[in-house]
Amino acid sequence: MKNLTNLSFSNVKILNGFWKSRYDLNREVSLRAVYNRFEDTARFESLRFLYRETGRLPHIFYDSDVAKWIEAVGYLIEGNGGGYEEEQEIIDALVSDMAKNQLPDGYLNGHFIQVEPNNRFTDRSQHELYCAGHLIEAAIAYDKATGKHKFLSIMKKYIDCIERYFVTEKLASFTTCGHEEIELALIKLFDYTGEQRYLDLALFFLDQRGAAEEPEAYPNQFNKKYDQSDIPVRELDTAEGHAVRAMYLYIAMAEAARKTGDKALLDACRRLWRNVVDKKMYVTGGIGSGKTGEAFTREYDLPNLEAYSESCAAIGLILFALSMQKTELCAEYSAVIERVLYNGLLSSTSLDGKAFFYENPLEIHLDSVGKETSILPKRQIKLPIRHRVEVFGCSCCPPNINRIFARIGDIFFSANDESLVVNQYGSVSYEDEGTLIQMTTDYPNDGKVTLCVERSAYPELLLRIPEWCEQFTVSVPHTVRDGYIAIPADTGKVEIVFAMEPYFVECNPHSRANNGRVALCYGPVVYCLERLDNEFDLNALSIDPIAAVAVGDVQTEFGMRSLSASAMLDKDFPALYRKAKAEETPVVLTFRPYYSFANREECDMLIWLRRR
Amino acid sequence: MKNLTNLSFSNVKILNGFWKSRYDLNREVSLRAVYNRFEDTARFESLRFLYRETGRLPHIFYDSDVAKWIEAVGYLIEGNGGGYEEEQEIIDALVSDMAKNQLPDGYLNGHFIQVEPNNRFTDRSQHELYCAGHLIEAAIAYDKATGKHKFLSIMKKYIDCIERYFVTEKLASFTTCGHEEIELALIKLFDYTGEQRYLDLALFFLDQRGAAEEPEAYPNQFNKKYDQSDIPVRELDTAEGHAVRAMYLYIAMAEAARKTGDKALLDACRRLWRNVVDKKMYVTGGIGSGKTGEAFTREYDLPNLEAYSESCAAIGLILFALSMQKTELCAEYSAVIERVLYNGLLSSTSLDGKAFFYENPLEIHLDSVGKETSILPKRQIKLPIRHRVEVFGCSCCPPNINRIFARIGDIFFSANDESLVVNQYGSVSYEDEGTLIQMTTDYPNDGKVTLCVERSAYPELLLRIPEWCEQFTVSVPHTVRDGYIAIPADTGKVEIVFAMEPYFVECNPHSRANNGRVALCYGPVVYCLERLDNEFDLNALSIDPIAAVAVGDVQTEFGMRSLSASAMLDKDFPALYRKAKAEETPVVLTFRPYYSFANREECDMLIWLRRR
Repeated sequence: MKNLTNLSFSNVKILNGFWKSRYDLNREVSLRAVYNRFEDTARFESLRFLYRETGRLPHIFYDSDVAKWIEAVGYLIEGNGGGYEEEQEIIDALVSDMAKNQLPDGYLNGHFIQVEPNNRFTDRSQHELYCAGHLIEAAIAYDKATGKHKFLSIMKKYIDCIERYFVTEKLASFTTCGHEEIELALIKLFDYTGEQRYLDLALFFLDQRGAAEEPEAYPNQFNKKYDQSDIPVRELDTAEGHAVRAMYLYIAMAEAARKTGDKALLDACRRLWRNVVDKKMYVTGGIGSGKTGEAFTREYDLPNLEAYSESCAAIGLILFALSMQKTELCAEYSAVIERVLYNGLLSSTSLDGKAFFYENPLEIHLDSVGKETSILPKRQIKLPIRHRVEVFGCSCCPPNINRIFARIGDIFFSANDESLVVNQYGSVSYEDEGTLIQMTTDYPNDGKVTLCVERSAYPELLLRIPEWCEQFTVSVPHTVRDGYIAIPADTGKVEIVFAMEPYFVECNPHSRANNGRVALCYGPVVYCLERLDNEFDLNALSIDPIAAVAVGDVQTEFGMRSLSASAMLDKDFPALYRKAKAEETPVVLTFRPYYSFANREECDMLIWLRRR
Repeated sequence: MKNLTNLSFSNVKILNGFWKSRYDLNREVSLRAVYNRFEDTARFESLRFLYRETGRLPHIFYDSDVAKWIEAVGYLIEGNGGGYEEEQEIIDALVSDMAKNQLPDGYLNGHFIQVEPNNRFTDRSQHELYCAGHLIEAAIAYDKATGKHKFLSIMKKYIDCIERYFVTEKLASFTTCGHEEIELALIKLFDYTGEQRYLDLALFFLDQRGAAEEPEAYPNQFNKKYDQSDIPVRELDTAEGHAVRAMYLYIAMAEAARKTGDKALLDACRRLWRNVVDKKMYVTGGIGSGKTGEAFTREYDLPNLEAYSESCAAIGLILFALSMQKTELCAEYSAVIERVLYNGLLSSTSLDGKAFFYENPLEIHLDSVGKETSILPKRQIKLPIRHRVEVFGCSCCPPNINRIFARIGDIFFSANDESLVVNQYGSVSYEDEGTLIQMTTDYPNDGKVTLCVERSAYPELLLRIPEWCEQFTVSVPHTVRDGYIAIPADTGKVEIVFAMEPYFVECNPHSRANNGRVALCYGPVVYCLERLDNEFDLNALSIDPIAAVAVGDVQTEFGMRSLSASAMLDKDFPALYRKAKAEETPVVLTFRPYYSFANREECDMLIWLRRR
């Protein structure tokens, strides 16, 4: 395997355009919004160890919420080359509190130390190693960004404790955590420190998963597929169970496979990737369609109105793809990242940056909300939320969104010994000692990309041809290879135009929810109808996929072009049933990017229109 | 209002053809099947007062289960002019036990006397008056059929007790029952005995409903719409809440309105009828789409896979229509009866007569069953049952099916002063002193109907033109009036041919589940696809509603013609998404009557096909 690597965001500058506005919105608004709501809800107090004073109970996953926010700050400091002093003060004080309250044996968990001191490591379902993992990731990011080592030393001491509890002295009542995360964090720490024991500990948890004799995490609700501990990880064939847990496990598996050359592990990752991408992924890149358990369900089960499609799962899929991208040069990994990026990830955040979706529905039908007119609200079937909120009881998504946008520079470039690979398009630059490359584009509003290579440590540039693109022009001599445009790196300035036209996609006919339907896209962006723009019963519309689609101007509100097309509306009639007449009226529809839905008042929304 | 009346089954003979086989299946198989299962499950023991001996707990609605079975036997004896000795022995012994155990003040309820003697009439939700109502209906039927008065005397004594508890001494903790039924039963008793006090008591319960200050029946689950006690009955506008409760109430309202000339009450019935028929009725005539609470939901909310559509609610709608049919001559009432009869009612029973549906789904999609692969079965979302069973915990439907088929003769004829009205078509005869008419037909397999009028007390015959019929011929001079063919009764022999062709229906476009879809029908019968006959993913099919449909022979298995038609199947492709190509393959589909679905091994079923 060639020495493939992803080029870090720390060498990438987001210059302007589409991603600049998202990047800035995250650091200028969302980061502070999440912080404020987390202070309101006592999340930081968990690691300030204030429970006895305030009486505000630290939930078992509060440590991880805070950790992800710290990790985001770390990335922002690193990307900015410093700054974020106010946030650093908050974090330093918090680290101080952690140091003071860490138990003599290294144990560190806000909930268990304060609420259940006698129940440490007794219950697989209690997220202790999950919290530890997120704190390790945060500590690495903060250490790298600031050079302050205190947080990471705390975590290393905690890892010593974990090693003792789980490996050397086996004091814990279980072997693997009910929610994966520690595995990938330990591998990250191995990458950061070069210390083999962290990789070994990660491999221990991976090898034991589904192999160790240990209690079920959720004996009353879920089977062992739920936390991917039904069979040894190398035997996994299909994506099952809680989607975020699954992604975090797969990331660790891919990273471990690459580092150890473990072919069985890599093969498992490839099978799991195929199962997700070919059978269980929404057109938005969302995964985990099942509301109950936030879980994967059967193949092709992709309900729109009842979609779960958690924001964290979308982020998990991006991270899994980033890990797979390091194992082999394959355009599909980046294509999936692009799909999630512009759709299921962007939809997670309101256009003002202050509110978030936990679940990301693919349809809104207000008449189906509270349809059970005689049932008390608490007993009614829960339907997807129709608007984003600032904080939720289980608030894993908002800080996860903070940290993914803070490292968004990671998605653009990878490299092997010969080639610098451009995986995503945006107005960004990459600079290190040997290489300086600048990219200018209005992508995803326009397919024209200008690349200026000032200097390059790599003899060749590989530019990914987007999955949706059927025609392109390149201003210099080039070859096409495995879904990439190959150009000698000494070409200097290159202009590529990916022909960008609106197009309709269809879903595999085995999808009961989507067959006979089409979705309108423009470049990588999935569009939708909102009833505020289209005063019709959206399900009474049908469209011919060869319909001419008019491309409008870029709308300031959501930073993308609007699209419009003619469709047919079933004519209303008073009866409930009649002999089929199929009377229709032509109407003109206005489409907006899916990611921008639910930013005005609540209204119906639809992605998949009936095909004529 | 003209003196409209329904002509009783006691003068109707089911001679042969479609309804003869159903009538016989019910009396020869289903009646005994229900009896056996009810003995197995200790239902009869409730009224044998054996709880202390056997320890088998009589549930609060067991009395009503038994009552409906007795009522069915009563109708069968009446229709047969005697017989059913074995059943009579069972019933007589049971009546004897009831007499022995009836409390001195007249109170009679198997559950409360044996299990909760101190809780009589303390809880609206406990079905006591509901059970009383069914016992009254049973007693009337048995009294009329056998001339044995003991059962009805017991019930009259119980009614005295009820009157004391609820009206004169007001000893009960509530005013109206959480499940309607007593009201219609008391009106039936008024019809049978002519005693005004029974009508008065029914009117008391109707007037108090939604008007009395009384406790909520289900404060933790449902609001007052659930049992139609949120507003006074004359103010009801829309069908809400538990569908069977609603129907039983509406029947009593319609009957009371007719007897008292209460226009406000009749207007309410008409509004409720319109709301059900125009907004809340499946194409099968099923009602109550909501699984939670077996209830009406919002208008046009008619999910197919998740349909509840309880068998008892279908029966309730037939009975409501029969009551409305007496208030005015209007073909729509009989049209709705016809819709329910051949679809949502017939589907309730297996072709062998031994097993029953409680809920009647309009789609089966096996891949959606247990789709939550990581969730324990008990925590999974419950989907409709895929096969009929012999008895359920709440087994209201099977004996209700027994009693409706036992009185199926009631649906065919009504009359006013001038006209004998033929509402439904079948090979039956009607005979009383003044009238003898014989009808011969292969309906619903054929639209030809031959009527021989031997003698008629009515100067005119009115033959309902079926809702689905656009062309017909009549062999004698006739006029057409308000949806009826009018013929002088002295015509003697008449041959009518209702042109019967397969046709597609469409649903109101506001129905999210059905818009853009069509259902194939033949005469009054809704057809469906079963995957056993059509080896395709049924949702990947689409059909042009002008497709030629071939009419096959009558199939012995289900007693109807099979139909076949060409359709298009979306071509399979390996990816989950691709640019829309809409590649299709022509296929030939075989349709069978909806009522016959799920009589072989479990398989997918679909009524509403995508329209091309």
